[in-house]
Amino acid sequence: MRRSVFTEEHEDFRKTFRSFLESEVVPHYQEWYDAGVVDRELYTKLGDLGILGIEVPEEYGGAGIHSFKFSAVLTEETARAGVHLGGVGVHLELCLPYLLKLATPEQMKRWMPGFVSGQEMWAIAMTEPGTGSDLAGMRSTARRDGDSYVLNGAKTFITGGVLADRVIVCARTSPPLESNRRFGISLFAVDTKSEGYEVGRKLDKIGLRTSDTAELSFTDVRVPATDLLGEENEGFSYLGQNLPQERLGIAFGAYAQAEAAIRFTQAYVEERQVFGTPVASFQNTKFELAACRAEVDAAQAVVDRALEAHDAGELTPVDAASAKLFCTEVAGRVIDRCLQLHGGYGYMNEYPIARLYADTRVTRIYGGTSEVMKLILAKSMGL
Amino acid sequence: MRRSVFTEEHEDFRKTFRSFLESEVVPHYQEWYDAGVVDRELYTKLGDLGILGIEVPEEYGGAGIHSFKFSAVLTEETARAGVHLGGVGVHLELCLPYLLKLATPEQMKRWMPGFVSGQEMWAIAMTEPGTGSDLAGMRSTARRDGDSYVLNGAKTFITGGVLADRVIVCARTSPPLESNRRFGISLFAVDTKSEGYEVGRKLDKIGLRTSDTAELSFTDVRVPATDLLGEENEGFSYLGQNLPQERLGIAFGAYAQAEAAIRFTQAYVEERQVFGTPVASFQNTKFELAACRAEVDAAQAVVDRALEAHDAGELTPVDAASAKLFCTEVAGRVIDRCLQLHGGYGYMNEYPIARLYADTRVTRIYGGTSEVMKLILAKSMGL
Amino acid sequence: MRRSVFTEEHEDFRKTFRSFLESEVVPHYQEWYDAGVVDRELYTKLGDLGILGIEVPEEYGGAGIHSFKFSAVLTEETARAGVHLGGVGVHLELCLPYLLKLATPEQMKRWMPGFVSGQEMWAIAMTEPGTGSDLAGMRSTARRDGDSYVLNGAKTFITGGVLADRVIVCARTSPPLESNRRFGISLFAVDTKSEGYEVGRKLDKIGLRTSDTAELSFTDVRVPATDLLGEENEGFSYLGQNLPQERLGIAFGAYAQAEAAIRFTQAYVEERQVFGTPVASFQNTKFELAACRAEVDAAQAVVDRALEAHDAGELTPVDAASAKLFCTEVAGRVIDRCLQLHGGYGYMNEYPIARLYADTRVTRIYGGTSEVMKLILAKSMGL
Amino acid sequence: MRRSVFTEEHEDFRKTFRSFLESEVVPHYQEWYDAGVVDRELYTKLGDLGILGIEVPEEYGGAGIHSFKFSAVLTEETARAGVHLGGVGVHLELCLPYLLKLATPEQMKRWMPGFVSGQEMWAIAMTEPGTGSDLAGMRSTARRDGDSYVLNGAKTFITGGVLADRVIVCARTSPPLESNRRFGISLFAVDTKSEGYEVGRKLDKIGLRTSDTAELSFTDVRVPATDLLGEENEGFSYLGQNLPQERLGIAFGAYAQAEAAIRFTQAYVEERQVFGTPVASFQNTKFELAACRAEVDAAQAVVDRALEAHDAGELTPVDAASAKLFCTEVAGRVIDRCLQLHGGYGYMNEYPIARLYADTRVTRIYGGTSEVMKLILAKSMGL
Repeated sequence: MRRSVFTEEHEDFRKTFRSFLESEVVPHYQEWYDAGVVDRELYTKLGDLGILGIEVPEEYGGAGIHSFKFSAVLTEETARAGVHLGGVGVHLELCLPYLLKLATPEQMKRWMPGFVSGQEMWAIAMTEPGTGSDLAGMRSTARRDGDSYVLNGAKTFITGGVLADRVIVCARTSPPLESNRRFGISLFAVDTKSEGYEVGRKLDKIGLRTSDTAELSFTDVRVPATDLLGEENEGFSYLGQNLPQERLGIAFGAYAQAEAAIRFTQAYVEERQVFGTPVASFQNTKFELAACRAEVDAAQAVVDRALEAHDAGELTPVDAASAKLFCTEVAGRVIDRCLQLHGGYGYMNEYPIARLYADTRVTRIYGGTSEVMKLILAKSMGL
Repeated sequence: MRRSVFTEEHEDFRKTFRSFLESEVVPHYQEWYDAGVVDRELYTKLGDLGILGIEVPEEYGGAGIHSFKFSAVLTEETARAGVHLGGVGVHLELCLPYLLKLATPEQMKRWMPGFVSGQEMWAIAMTEPGTGSDLAGMRSTARRDGDSYVLNGAKTFITGGVLADRVIVCARTSPPLESNRRFGISLFAVDTKSEGYEVGRKLDKIGLRTSDTAELSFTDVRVPATDLLGEENEGFSYLGQNLPQERLGIAFGAYAQAEAAIRFTQAYVEERQVFGTPVASFQNTKFELAACRAEVDAAQAVVDRALEAHDAGELTPVDAASAKLFCTEVAGRVIDRCLQLHGGYGYMNEYPIARLYADTRVTRIYGGTSEVMKLILAKSMGL
Repeated sequence: MRRSVFTEEHEDFRKTFRSFLESEVVPHYQEWYDAGVVDRELYTKLGDLGILGIEVPEEYGGAGIHSFKFSAVLTEETARAGVHLGGVGVHLELCLPYLLKLATPEQMKRWMPGFVSGQEMWAIAMTEPGTGSDLAGMRSTARRDGDSYVLNGAKTFITGGVLADRVIVCARTSPPLESNRRFGISLFAVDTKSEGYEVGRKLDKIGLRTSDTAELSFTDVRVPATDLLGEENEGFSYLGQNLPQERLGIAFGAYAQAEAAIRFTQAYVEERQVFGTPVASFQNTKFELAACRAEVDAAQAVVDRALEAHDAGELTPVDAASAKLFCTEVAGRVIDRCLQLHGGYGYMNEYPIARLYADTRVTRIYGGTSEVMKLILAKSMGL
Repeated sequence: MRRSVFTEEHEDFRKTFRSFLESEVVPHYQEWYDAGVVDRELYTKLGDLGILGIEVPEEYGGAGIHSFKFSAVLTEETARAGVHLGGVGVHLELCLPYLLKLATPEQMKRWMPGFVSGQEMWAIAMTEPGTGSDLAGMRSTARRDGDSYVLNGAKTFITGGVLADRVIVCARTSPPLESNRRFGISLFAVDTKSEGYEVGRKLDKIGLRTSDTAELSFTDVRVPATDLLGEENEGFSYLGQNLPQERLGIAFGAYAQAEAAIRFTQAYVEERQVFGTPVASFQNTKFELAACRAEVDAAQAVVDRALEAHDAGELTPVDAASAKLFCTEVAGRVIDRCLQLHGGYGYMNEYPIARLYADTRVTRIYGGTSEVMKLILAKSMGL
């Protein structure tokens, strides 16, 4: 189906970014993959290309574009190239919305140059060991002391946590109110070079190997009061606001992975011979890929519609939940079928389908599990 | 997700048609269902309402609208009301396109008044016992004899065949060419009151009970040469042209059935108590309905996109195949899950979910099976 | 896999019964199917063959065999022949266990001759309109009055209810105790020719058409006290005791349907040509049937193991629930895939696959829904 | 369901082996996992325990037991402990059958002591880069030269290839006959310390990390003629003979993984709290685990039946294919659902469910893909 979401401008951007991936990422990717983290320079190169500033206002060095479509192109092309850019997604899609919404002009002036250039990579730290989705139960604290706050506690599952230069940390600044457990949480943009800030274990995950997921710990870390993000004690209310975009991003990523999986698999089955015949010529191969095609077409219809709605400011949390639930399940099914068509090679990480298989599994979990998406949908139906 | 395919005009039409269904169809439906055929008067009532003439040019008594969207509304509302209008779909969505494309002005003048008023219901007869999808192998013949053709042969699976007043019949007028098996087939608009025209068994199907599917046989039926539709011997080339619209129609119908299934089920589980608790309050019920909701949202995105493309003249055969494959599988899965939530009542035909279950199964088969859709998709991918 | 459950004795019985089906059932089946009920004589013919007395003690005219294996052969052969024997399953597998367990020698002497000869067909009536699975909430009452009870109330979903001569009816004889809602229910073997006993609507179901499912109503029906089955007020405790066998029976039936579906489908695809090639020769056909084969092999392993356990008196309620859940889901999946391989003919009730499709759907519902099976399994796991 | 395959003897063995795993494997497993290979000493410890000699004839230092049941216990316990024993499965289940069948008494006397003690670990090398399942197309050669053969070529996907001391290598000793492509292949038991024998890359796989899968290359490796296994040129005929046992082993492993997954998950959901409630208390959790339970019960019925048949010498290639196809698909589905119930922790390799997820994927591929199993089943059905 001819798509209508992207204009010539997006297609030009796509070409530029595709070339960049081909020359600056793909040749080094195996190395990064084996190291379990992308090269730090990748970020500054992306900064040089202007990619980290697309949605940043012009006055702070960005392009000032109010659209998620360039992010979508980024996602599609990254998947198509069979690579993963480590903490870039978190930097752009998770952290930036908080800054755009909450940072004061003074803060923007301080932070955006590094953000846009890639000199300063951002991450975000919400989850704590043992609390999971119950954010109101977090135990990290930030006690006001003169011009700064003193931060103590620990966080886990922090994507980009090894390389990050600044991390948005949620911590309790006041005890919960009896009437409102959510009161008393604040956000801080913590400099990772601060004393007492420590990066713990890099977590060993099924996939997403270049995405440096870490544990963090804070021991009397002094955070200047000027690095408080938004209102003190009101942090909880900020946390959910970016969820629709985050989930649209995950849905889009899952769609793009599934699309890429078909592409890799078609190339494989056309080249691969069994008993003198290309695997592509078997009816089972054709039917499997066709079934995948129809599912991915549907996923594309879903994300394109959601993308337009989001750019128009109309994407509801329910729409985003529906798109995430659907697209991540499609990706799971499609990538599994595509891997199977690779035979034994599909199990080897040197083949992109193997990495996609390992990577895509988390999309049904992070940003809210499929079960959470179902709760949101059920509630919206009045159930 | 807010839909953008329908305008106020469509919503007005929706209201009118919904009232019509509530007053003229729903109260009599059980009776028609038990009889296995809708009341003949239904057709003239639909004619009176202007529904049969929406896409008919104004000069022939219609509204002259070039859009499939009113048909889509019709489909949605029929499913929502839990009913099926017998041969109306065939009349409007299968036969009319042939007439609009092939009928001469003289023929249009003769046929359209009855078509639009519902006095003359149309059906179409392609399949023969034993030939199935291989239309070029058909054995019905039409021999020219003076001012008429003499038609002999048999057809099967003719939806609306019992009540139809005029049937588009495909028959061989010349033997196949060695270079082209498809040459030699012609289309005729046969008056069902002709001598030698006989309606055979009404076929007993799993579902679609009000849709009077029949076998037909022709014994020396004289068809006036003025009832030849299109060029003699060129009939085969006409047959595929309407397939994208036909498949979009089936995809839309499947989507609408799935949407209706959720609605019926939600009403049921909210009302139905088990051990003093509404079935709706169980987490399993919520999760099942939410999972269905996400799938149906995706189907809606698919059909809405395809509908816009079709109205813009851009729906390709591949797009239509993809939409049909996807939406009919969604409907199969969703309606099965919804039926399960009804417990034993879901198996009783007095509940609409039971009828939907029986009806929807054929959507993966007719208009081209899922396997045929996969062949189309695989071919489009170069496999 | 070579099966070990059946001995030569069973295989001899299989041959006899297969011949019986071929000569006495298959030739009339379409007629019965169209009538929605089997011929009444079928029951006496089965009686003549000794089939209704297999598990009845010799002193009452039966063969006195303590094994469910002959029932299993019956089930397999019926499915293989593509037919359904109306109320026979209820008579043998649901009612007989109650009689064997609860009837006094006097009652056995009165009832068994008719039971064994098929002169008197039995059914069982538990469910009431509106109460569903909550049997303790039933509202039918039986008030003691002299030498008889006066029965009032209504029942629904009574399989075999139209033709039944005697029906085991559950009714309240005392109000529930505060400490035990289940107290106060009694079972009666009600003569269906009694005054005030009325057969209501025959219910219109998706499938199982020859199985005459009906509503019953009782208006001051006098039931002799000698027709009380078991202890007064203790009926509830009897109700669950036969569930493992009932569920094994359903599991076995589902397995047998799936096995039959493969057989019908293989015959169809081998005979059916598309464009000059048998459907059987397509790789998709082979893969679909092979996938079905592996699932049905697994179902066979499950039911055979459960059958041995049952004959050894070791089949637990949990084992039976697991077998029912698994086998009915396998049957659902397998029969759906097999139907699809039939194309349009699969939707026509004259093909056995169409009837199997409609019939098998209820197996995930009756005898306890799949959801109830999951509750049983979860509880057994300590969840 | 009470199992009947294992006797007291097996249960005693189970206890011994379980203790061994708890004391000798589990405490070191994370270390081995991170290293990507088990400790070499594990093998000699298993030898000391007598585990490597169970099926070896007594005259060669083994226990001379003709049964696959101890292997099955081994498999169950390993999965239950959440570990994987590297190349042990290959040593015992793949290599030993060749030796028992083909080795001369002289060879047995030379090789078995090391085999049984674990001093000499075996592996097997069939697949070559680029040839895949078409073994007759292999390009490695072994040219006779005096008292030895000169081996050249390369192999890939060799499980246990890094640590192996002796590898059964297939190579061409004669060109194929026109009438029989399979002629001309021979098997050799190659000493991995031979000159010219090189272990190439350890392959990076999605899972099975402790299983050291490698590429091998042979450059003029001199193999003494006394290390030829079986008849020269007849190697191909030996290759398929062990497939039923190999596939039963994989089916059993998949079943055991799924069983272990349920166990790990139940422990997790019972301990893990969300919003103050254990995850186990949600209906969705119960239903998911119950659904898994029923599938794994079925897999158990399948493997137990196949195990009995195998010990009785009656397991056909078709039975084994059916069991492998079914059980590996069950494991795929069950482990995916179990992982989901872990939320984010399910994606972390420190949790056994994550490792099971990554490990189990290959079971649908190795030992013959699911597609190959379907071909075998279809052929057995006469399709």
